[in-house]
Amino acid sequence: MLGLMQNWPLTVDKILDHADNWHADREVVTRSIEGPVVRTTYGQIHRRAKQLSDALLELGVERGDRIATLAWNTDRHMEVWYGIMGIGAVCHTLNPRLFAEQLCYIINHAEDRIVFTDLTFAPLLAQHRDQMPSVKHFVVLADEARTRQAGIPDAISYETLIAGRAGEAAWGGFDENTAAGLCYTSGTTGNPKGVLYSHRSNYLHALLTLQADVMGLSVKDVVLPVVPMFHANAWGVTFAAPAVGAKLVMPGQKLDGPSVYELIVSEGVTVSAAVPTVWQMLLQHLDATGGRIDTLKRVFIGGSACPESIIRGFKERYGVEVFHLWGMTEMSPVGTIGGETPAVARLSYDEQMAYKLKQGRCPLGVEMKLTDDAGAVLPHDGKTFGRLKVRGHSVAGAYFKGDGGDILDQEGFFDTGDVATIDDQGYMQITDRAKDVIKSGGEWISSIEIENIAVGHPKAAIAAVIGVHHPKWEERPLLLVKLKDGAAATKEEFLAHLEGKIAKWWTPDDVVFVDEIPLGATGKIDKKVLRTRFEDYVLPGAAAAKAG
Amino acid sequence: MLGLMQNWPLTVDKILDHADNWHADREVVTRSIEGPVVRTTYGQIHRRAKQLSDALLELGVERGDRIATLAWNTDRHMEVWYGIMGIGAVCHTLNPRLFAEQLCYIINHAEDRIVFTDLTFAPLLAQHRDQMPSVKHFVVLADEARTRQAGIPDAISYETLIAGRAGEAAWGGFDENTAAGLCYTSGTTGNPKGVLYSHRSNYLHALLTLQADVMGLSVKDVVLPVVPMFHANAWGVTFAAPAVGAKLVMPGQKLDGPSVYELIVSEGVTVSAAVPTVWQMLLQHLDATGGRIDTLKRVFIGGSACPESIIRGFKERYGVEVFHLWGMTEMSPVGTIGGETPAVARLSYDEQMAYKLKQGRCPLGVEMKLTDDAGAVLPHDGKTFGRLKVRGHSVAGAYFKGDGGDILDQEGFFDTGDVATIDDQGYMQITDRAKDVIKSGGEWISSIEIENIAVGHPKAAIAAVIGVHHPKWEERPLLLVKLKDGAAATKEEFLAHLEGKIAKWWTPDDVVFVDEIPLGATGKIDKKVLRTRFEDYVLPGAAAAKAG
Repeated sequence: MLGLMQNWPLTVDKILDHADNWHADREVVTRSIEGPVVRTTYGQIHRRAKQLSDALLELGVERGDRIATLAWNTDRHMEVWYGIMGIGAVCHTLNPRLFAEQLCYIINHAEDRIVFTDLTFAPLLAQHRDQMPSVKHFVVLADEARTRQAGIPDAISYETLIAGRAGEAAWGGFDENTAAGLCYTSGTTGNPKGVLYSHRSNYLHALLTLQADVMGLSVKDVVLPVVPMFHANAWGVTFAAPAVGAKLVMPGQKLDGPSVYELIVSEGVTVSAAVPTVWQMLLQHLDATGGRIDTLKRVFIGGSACPESIIRGFKERYGVEVFHLWGMTEMSPVGTIGGETPAVARLSYDEQMAYKLKQGRCPLGVEMKLTDDAGAVLPHDGKTFGRLKVRGHSVAGAYFKGDGGDILDQEGFFDTGDVATIDDQGYMQITDRAKDVIKSGGEWISSIEIENIAVGHPKAAIAAVIGVHHPKWEERPLLLVKLKDGAAATKEEFLAHLEGKIAKWWTPDDVVFVDEIPLGATGKIDKKVLRTRFEDYVLPGAAAAKAG
Repeated sequence: MLGLMQNWPLTVDKILDHADNWHADREVVTRSIEGPVVRTTYGQIHRRAKQLSDALLELGVERGDRIATLAWNTDRHMEVWYGIMGIGAVCHTLNPRLFAEQLCYIINHAEDRIVFTDLTFAPLLAQHRDQMPSVKHFVVLADEARTRQAGIPDAISYETLIAGRAGEAAWGGFDENTAAGLCYTSGTTGNPKGVLYSHRSNYLHALLTLQADVMGLSVKDVVLPVVPMFHANAWGVTFAAPAVGAKLVMPGQKLDGPSVYELIVSEGVTVSAAVPTVWQMLLQHLDATGGRIDTLKRVFIGGSACPESIIRGFKERYGVEVFHLWGMTEMSPVGTIGGETPAVARLSYDEQMAYKLKQGRCPLGVEMKLTDDAGAVLPHDGKTFGRLKVRGHSVAGAYFKGDGGDILDQEGFFDTGDVATIDDQGYMQITDRAKDVIKSGGEWISSIEIENIAVGHPKAAIAAVIGVHHPKWEERPLLLVKLKDGAAATKEEFLAHLEGKIAKWWTPDDVVFVDEIPLGATGKIDKKVLRTRFEDYVLPGAAAAKAG
């Protein structure tokens, strides 16, 4: 027997409709690409997004068509999102930090019909235009004059495109499982793969983040999403903020310390979200200038593990609470969130730090399990490493066009590719990427954990740990160190530095000093390259073990 | 094109599964019906609810079967909810405050197969047992010994029923639109009508209430739902609290000031929800005893409008923030919530009071409109009265078995039966019931507003205002007053008391002193009876108007 409640599809157009109905005058403030800080409201964004929908329909856009954006966090980018999604087309966010060939691959794979671009990226698109045959129109997010100077000969000006339109396009009215967004993961192996979000998954993800123990945004908040809309949906903030009528502050392309600081102070930002490097830059700016950020209460940090110095710096010097937020493109992206359980809240500040450094706990809507390689569930004891697998209403079930094949296990869980622990309080901690973890005698060693300690050696510029074949143990850790310019060191110095900080059997079997450690497109160490480079490396003692 | 996210049905069993997985040791504390305060955890509730599911399946319960509960807020009641809903049966909450004949009508209309009852209500059921032919089993929420003394000869003891079972019943796995709960509204006209909640509507309602600007429960909260599970789902708290792992404190049958106070203090309650009379009793107890409730931060008040004295009393004497919460059974029940917009937050405390007294603003997921009788949308100016109509994911689309016919307008909105205003900040205020509003010369007069002022006259025990036919104006207000014992008053005294407090044209055309003002089952003034009683009443001036 079915219930008799109203049929009310969860489509994201309802979010901006709600903001327009109940928070029409709430401000959205943007550091524009043209330079000045510009001010608009949810009411105006709603009106202009509707006008864009009119224009898209006139351009022949149909439900399911992929329309790309290559843009920073701005009011216009937000209008384009809702204008596209509202009519059932798919907003494909392109990541400008990718190499041009990857961008072209992604645009072609998605078969994008239109690309909306900030002035910043117009030259790049102009240069590669002939490699994007599916694209019929380029729309520059600027006025007519600036568009004409942007370098794409027949580009359309966004302002001209929407000007004077009635904004009468109907929004929603389709299945809530209709595709709404597309974002490619920059996988380290193979081609990028597309995650195809639905209206339902985005809507539910917004509600998930709105819980008090996740982001808990309020109408009284002023939210600065530094994390870009092109990277995992700005962690959902551009859905969550209008959902509650929080004031939104968009940083445009200026993410440096002084620029972020200026917006926090001038707009009274209370909540922000960004990757650790942004916070590092802000802290350095504050410490150097004596600046204060008294309105700021909470910051969410994700993208990579947040150093203790940032957490302590914000809390001890500026009274700001830092929350780890872990997720991935395939999770829309939120998976876990820091914050205290009642038991952790009773600990001392220093004792709490161990928990604050973990990736956090999963809210309702995210299911999580640790398994061994055979799929058997592992205990939540804070020590046992396992493959981290997730399930939920906002987790990918497949990649676009079936790339990567069947990505779920028999119970419907998606393998994150991470290795993690979960403690008895429910805090998850990423210990490594599954492909980077070192398998030694049936036990797992975290390459990241050793790297993080090794890089703390005063002479180290960068450090990497990889597993190298060992005849007896299967793999053993090899530490690679690039020293700081002019520094000289011995293996023994580095091994002594690790001693007592890691289990004895984790100690690398060897240390090699290298001139260069390769980085991937997103700035992370490219261990695939390193593993190939050291494929035939013979560890000291390996030959003996083989002989013995 | 559909998105490619996981298929993850929104079923409420996932909420208790989540609590069991991540908050297993979090306490649920109950003032038991037997007397003592008993302590359990979400983990144990989950295990016992699963055991109950086993038992229900053995009793032949199938998906869609209605299983009733007649019980206070307790841990066992919660187990029964989840045990029933988890296997796709329908948990039908019976309201013990209804007259016995209404209860029998509802049980028969729902065709309940099993009734779970607290010891408190066993005598009532025993007495009327032969009027409930569909009921095959009565289960008393007690141990075997107490069940044997409860007065229902062949009743099953709940503890005996679940004892020793493996708890292996599968939960969920069905369509999220599957019916989960049934609750009858005690309409003032006609028979009670059943609202049939779905898993989806309950799950989404929980997420709606979890937003920071609604209830915003946190894992660190200790929540006391005084509002009963049999009345509009305890405002969703028994879904929302386990969803975040908040500690739950269940008051059982003792809702008096000292009992509620004792639980707040002994358990460290931080959030509570109840009707105004409960808060009135608590305030009186605190004021009389000098008691402190320092852990309590927020209380939600609904069911009827909260007097200013309660809001001020809590805030000024105990530092507790009071939030109006308005809703109805047909809305699962939350419709609007008090709380400050940034503009209201900037006002002085006294200026804020005007907003705190209103019913509040609607969160995402609730759509709301005001219309005139013809369905035309009215402005949100804080003055214009209109019929209040609602739409959303947790709003009824029809009543059980089609009672009441088609209850939605052409746009899918449900008419709440209330007349309200909405101001430019979005705050809704109920001004009257649609059937009680007085239509005078095409304009509407709020009977409630006049009553509330009239009853403030020191000589009034109770006051009612009804519309009486008028040949020129269609209707004009008539004020009926029951004086306090021994008091004597004139019409002029009451009209003078109203002067300046209401618009001149709202002034009642006459005042009649009566010996009795009839109340309905839920304690509200029965205006239908009054209107019938005064059907032929001729107002002063009416005859002249007719002649003129």
